Amino acid sequence: MKVSFPPRLEFHFPCPIVLVTCGDMGRKNIIAVGAISHACVDPPMLGVAIGHSRHSYKLMEASDGFVVNVPRRNQVKVVDYCGKVSGENRDKFAACKLTATKSQKISAPQILEFPINIECATRKRVNLGSHDFFFGEIVAVHVDESVLDGEGRIDKAKLDPMAAFRESYFSLGDAVCSFGSAGAP
Amino acid sequence: MKVSFPPRLEFHFPCPIVLVTCGDMGRKNIIAVGAISHACVDPPMLGVAIGHSRHSYKLMEASDGFVVNVPRRNQVKVVDYCGKVSGENRDKFAACKLTATKSQKISAPQILEFPINIECATRKRVNLGSHDFFFGEIVAVHVDESVLDGEGRIDKAKLDPMAAFRESYFSLGDAVCSFGSAGAP
Repeated sequence: MKVSFPPRLEFHFPCPIVLVTCGDMGRKNIIAVGAISHACVDPPMLGVAIGHSRHSYKLMEASDGFVVNVPRRNQVKVVDYCGKVSGENRDKFAACKLTATKSQKISAPQILEFPINIECATRKRVNLGSHDFFFGEIVAVHVDESVLDGEGRIDKAKLDPMAAFRESYFSLGDAVCSFGSAGAP
Repeated sequence: MKVSFPPRLEFHFPCPIVLVTCGDMGRKNIIAVGAISHACVDPPMLGVAIGHSRHSYKLMEASDGFVVNVPRRNQVKVVDYCGKVSGENRDKFAACKLTATKSQKISAPQILEFPINIECATRKRVNLGSHDFFFGEIVAVHVDESVLDGEGRIDKAKLDPMAAFRESYFSLGDAVCSFGSAGAP
């Protein structure tokens, strides 16, 4: 038996939680984003939603791209802080003791201390109401050696990533099976 | 020390994995989607990427909306099957012994056996290359009582949801903390 829930945006399924950096090395900001998705395979693109009222919205509008910085679980305090406070009157890099480093292909900086940095060059953006959805082509990916296994692949246990679900951050649990190997339904 | 990875679309962070239903009660299909995101708060919208070569693309183009069906972990075989095979020459509902039920607000059917069904009315779509990104306004949400706690909220243990990461399906692990409660960075 099913019941009706209000038609609102809520974390009814596990979603990514990342820090997006935007602007440039001078005027820069960090924003915690739970609204991010794979968007296209060819060219490879990610999409992120940014609210019009956010300080980062003006920076996203003005810059040539953004960086998706993937956190480890032990960086939850930084993620949570960047989701709570505005960067309008404060430098979140300084407040969180994070290092802004130059990106290779775009002007937006990336976070040195975060293990994966995905540089995205903005290609399209769509106004949906309270938010714009920005589509960025993946132009460079940087991964810290400390999260790689012996074959140079990202290791789940070493990365120890998080997901957002309901009103909390969650760790990732056990592997169920690999894609394509579950067997007949 | 960071190393460069190819600028490709890969599951470098935990992403949702859901079944999207589209078409109508006559000509219907199910597609497994790992490219889905919160897109806007007001109006509340989800966005999904669908490849131009997929059978569901034509159905998505022709219909007024789509349904996001959230799986439990023990439905992984159905999710995996719907990601592997095309609905062009087969009825995935029949192949997976799933029941298509009418939606309240849109013509696309939903999957009775899946615990959460989110009806989305298509509002915009953007051509990005190999994929279109469809934005749908959330117009109805149905949740099975079996996944609710005593206060009528979705219970993580009862839902037992999955996420996609690297090349596998993962269960969700322990709660790290609730949003806004992590403490100073």
